[in-house]
Amino acid sequence: MWHLYQFPLCPFSRKVQLALGEKKIGYELVTLYPWDADERFRQLNPAGRVPVLHDPDRRVTLMDSMAICEFLEETVDDRPLILGSARARAEVRRLVALFDESFYQDITAPLLYEKMRKRLVLRQSPDSRVLTAARRLLHEHLDYIDWLIDNRRWVAGSQLSLADFAAAAQLSVVDYLGDMDWTGHESAHGWYRVMKSRPSFAPLLRQKMDGLPPPRSYADVNA
Amino acid sequence: MWHLYQFPLCPFSRKVQLALGEKKIGYELVTLYPWDADERFRQLNPAGRVPVLHDPDRRVTLMDSMAICEFLEETVDDRPLILGSARARAEVRRLVALFDESFYQDITAPLLYEKMRKRLVLRQSPDSRVLTAARRLLHEHLDYIDWLIDNRRWVAGSQLSLADFAAAAQLSVVDYLGDMDWTGHESAHGWYRVMKSRPSFAPLLRQKMDGLPPPRSYADVNA
Ligand SMILES: N[C@@H](CCC(=O)N[C@@H](CS)C(=O)NCC(=O)O)C(=O)O
Ligand SMILES: N[C@@H](CCC(=O)N[C@@H](CS)C(=O)NCC(=O)O)C(=O)O
Repeated sequence: MWHLYQFPLCPFSRKVQLALGEKKIGYELVTLYPWDADERFRQLNPAGRVPVLHDPDRRVTLMDSMAICEFLEETVDDRPLILGSARARAEVRRLVALFDESFYQDITAPLLYEKMRKRLVLRQSPDSRVLTAARRLLHEHLDYIDWLIDNRRWVAGSQLSLADFAAAAQLSVVDYLGDMDWTGHESAHGWYRVMKSRPSFAPLLRQKMDGLPPPRSYADVNA
Repeated sequence: MWHLYQFPLCPFSRKVQLALGEKKIGYELVTLYPWDADERFRQLNPAGRVPVLHDPDRRVTLMDSMAICEFLEETVDDRPLILGSARARAEVRRLVALFDESFYQDITAPLLYEKMRKRLVLRQSPDSRVLTAARRLLHEHLDYIDWLIDNRRWVAGSQLSLADFAAAAQLSVVDYLGDMDWTGHESAHGWYRVMKSRPSFAPLLRQKMDGLPPPRSYADVNA
């Protein structure tokens, strides 16, 4: 049985959970906060990061969310998520990297630091300038998602792919933190509602971070 | 013909150049500094980053260095670099991510900012505290490479892989900037000398950044 080391608001762990859900692979969640990690976790992942997907029986330890997704893609036939020609697959991977890196660095990471780490770990209040900058960049990224959805059926092309899940994973964290603002982004909003109502999304909408409740609309698949 | 948009000290572009070299794929270099990029480059890559691998004739545009390497892996038979079982491939990808992300964030990015951007673009002098911190973290990462090389033939296992090139690409930038210190890292040093003497490395050792000459030892394959 797979064990997924993660904490509820890690967007990369969310992407992996969505992939596991789509591929109908069973797993157990193990909550791990990297900032509290002990030596035992460092032995599992020298980079000290989540997600880590670990099977103690088969002694398989996988980490880095993209390496995990590529592994699942290579070993499980159900519901391919990196699909099509080599060019189509490169487009999926480009967009996964865009959301995992640029979106995360511009928006998710600063929001998580200001609203989660400062509140739960450092006992400080958020810096409003950082929040304002992140919210401004959110609109730029949503403009780009609007453009993708206006020009293609799904984020990376004509088929649902890992790029949709990478994007939705980041957005779901922003939404949990109460910073989502869909004003002027009809296309992105319509697409996100569809993502949110997939069965693979349900576990994410139930997971809560202690001391940090999501807004009411977060788990509402029609919101 | 492929055009590789890059600048000489971008470690991700170096990784791609090494993969192209190993696979014996011809390409032309196009120098592009992301901080000077114009609207035309943004059209090519909305993320505004290098490397971008572009074929104007076939109208193929690839970006994100790992997406590029996966594409080359899927389309060119010569010299596979992500190889073996699904587990072995996951190990290659884990280590590529470790060097591309943790090593880069801890060491290469701060050194590039302090020694390249500040000097060439911002006309400021480097912050010595940042340099000291990066050099300390360099020793931790070199310890990990020592450990890998003491336990395996190559960085990711028994075969030469993209993980070796990802690691060597980052190290070569540190070396160019004059910050390499091999003291106490015999194993990593021996492995790097082998990497440096591969034919695919030769172009990297010739490329210079205007106004920022490398130390003499940089291009010496015995150093
Ligand atoms: N590229 C990695 C990024 C993982 C990552 O940054 N995880 C964060 C949590 S969201 C973490 O563990 N940070 C702790 C640290 O970097 O020390 C992946 O996709 O798995
Ligand atoms: N994950 C990307 C990272 C690329 C990257 O960070 N490139 C740097 C140069 S070394 C860049 O273009 N930075 C400009 C920017 O982020 O605006 C890749 O592997 O291609």
